[in-house]
Amino acid sequence: MTSLAMIEAAAERLAGRARRTPLLSAPALDEIAGRRVLVKPECLQLTGSFKFRGAWAAISALDPALRARGVIALSSGNHAQGVAMAARLHGVPAVIVMPRDAPRVKIEGTRALGAELVLYDRATDDRDAIAAELADARGLTPIQPFDNPAVIAGQGTVGLEIAEQAADLGVSRAEVLVPCGGGGLSAGVALALEARAPGMRLRPVEPEGFDDTARSLAAGRIMGNDRLAGSVCDAILTPAPGGLTFPILKRLCGPGLAVTDDQAMQAVAQAFARLRIVAEPGGAVALAAALFHRSRIEGETVIVVVSGGNVDAALFCRALEGGAA
Amino acid sequence: MTSLAMIEAAAERLAGRARRTPLLSAPALDEIAGRRVLVKPECLQLTGSFKFRGAWAAISALDPALRARGVIALSSGNHAQGVAMAARLHGVPAVIVMPRDAPRVKIEGTRALGAELVLYDRATDDRDAIAAELADARGLTPIQPFDNPAVIAGQGTVGLEIAEQAADLGVSRAEVLVPCGGGGLSAGVALALEARAPGMRLRPVEPEGFDDTARSLAAGRIMGNDRLAGSVCDAILTPAPGGLTFPILKRLCGPGLAVTDDQAMQAVAQAFARLRIVAEPGGAVALAAALFHRSRIEGETVIVVVSGGNVDAALFCRALEGGAA
Repeated sequence: MTSLAMIEAAAERLAGRARRTPLLSAPALDEIAGRRVLVKPECLQLTGSFKFRGAWAAISALDPALRARGVIALSSGNHAQGVAMAARLHGVPAVIVMPRDAPRVKIEGTRALGAELVLYDRATDDRDAIAAELADARGLTPIQPFDNPAVIAGQGTVGLEIAEQAADLGVSRAEVLVPCGGGGLSAGVALALEARAPGMRLRPVEPEGFDDTARSLAAGRIMGNDRLAGSVCDAILTPAPGGLTFPILKRLCGPGLAVTDDQAMQAVAQAFARLRIVAEPGGAVALAAALFHRSRIEGETVIVVVSGGNVDAALFCRALEGGAA
Repeated sequence: MTSLAMIEAAAERLAGRARRTPLLSAPALDEIAGRRVLVKPECLQLTGSFKFRGAWAAISALDPALRARGVIALSSGNHAQGVAMAARLHGVPAVIVMPRDAPRVKIEGTRALGAELVLYDRATDDRDAIAAELADARGLTPIQPFDNPAVIAGQGTVGLEIAEQAADLGVSRAEVLVPCGGGGLSAGVALALEARAPGMRLRPVEPEGFDDTARSLAAGRIMGNDRLAGSVCDAILTPAPGGLTFPILKRLCGPGLAVTDDQAMQAVAQAFARLRIVAEPGGAVALAAALFHRSRIEGETVIVVVSGGNVDAALFCRALEGGAA
């Protein structure tokens, strides 16, 4: 079970490795949102998403002899790159099991970081079996994308930074909107805020039609999605909240929010024009909720995590053209 | 004459106002450049360029009674937005005299910040006469874009941050590549580095065909450009180095570098894909020099300022398509 002490320990291991991303703002965003908007751009993190934090936190905590044999991860992209980079910086092998239809920018980014890629077909292959067989045969340690206490602790360092940076601006009360897939980032940030910024409340944000976490929170038990494809928000399409993450979310989070693909794409365009950052659609859902669901949010200030920026140029430019998905 | 003490005083006035932009890097950029590349993304600064620093430094130093009457600036875009924002935060009027053919994103950005815009025609109007008449009639204080000691001091705070952030990474020797128009940023940064990072040497970077500073440095005296339009690097097309900036550049800078529009556009695409930041072509010329003129640069580490990110979506997407200008 992830604790504040684990998050603080992860922050120490990440010091000088992960970037302390700034807190950005722009008058034009405040006007659209009807309140002050503070943006934590984890697209500026190493490998272009917050995932590096959890990957480093988990790999740096491994027994050195075990770590030396290497790590393995299942991921369609951002976790893959985080694990590949953290393994590379530790000088240990990384094997990434990735769907063949993952965004090209993520496949190439992972390969460029020196990881060994094993591509599978979503329709016909059993990815878990592929990963388990490789892990057994080579003694690789699996680094789960969210249901791993050390990974959750690493993602929680985003929450420590938000608490400190908001306090520097005199902000102690706010809703904190976080893009949510399996819930690792949301759970880690919620734990950090509980201790360091108790006036803040986390709210997970998902794409419409893939709002498993919102429905699970409403029902009080884990609910799954009917489908796993069909949104531009590829980064946060997961089957269901995790067994480790959901109890944390249930205890600490406010109601979930859901945005359309079109709203996510508009948020990508706003982040480009107003903040000069590159957000991927899945990484921009929390910003979309702040901008386009203002009546469902409370308070004078809203804090938004932009969780990643690994997006193919064609899709990005479609967003800038004001195009729907 | 701008001194280190003035830069330090500007840094104090800017504390809590300007953003301390991070220092970014990516393995893929290091590979292209053949050395370690550290990027200072001033596109993430308030108003999307470093210009806010100089504008705030100058306006905050004015006598309050004078300041209350308002300020005026001549600018095609980034300085305009910096002055408009700094004036707005001081609660004083700003009048901006701007060419009618400035990028739309810059005209709209300046207007959105509450400034009064006076648009002129580059071919037929005398902008200096327009500005002088307005300043006289209303008692407005001109905030020059580069030939102003307080503005140079404000831009120099970028250099203080580079010196500190590089030292945190163990880097004390490096060439520091800076996009150069009138030379305010280059002069300020060079002065800061002289005192705080004497192992670093600044090199101004310009678009080919508009390399007035490089030619002036080579000649030892101020040389002008033949033309002032015809490059995608609109942010840094100026007639000649300034009377205040050039003596500083002459004393402290290494030889200037020049890049093609196509190289600037490629650097915009690299900054998108590798750093997830939005750079405008003129703001990306120093990154372009680091990536595509490696044989003209010395040392194991190069530090690059990306000076702005105010770019229309259409031009940005042309860069991502790998298109020439």
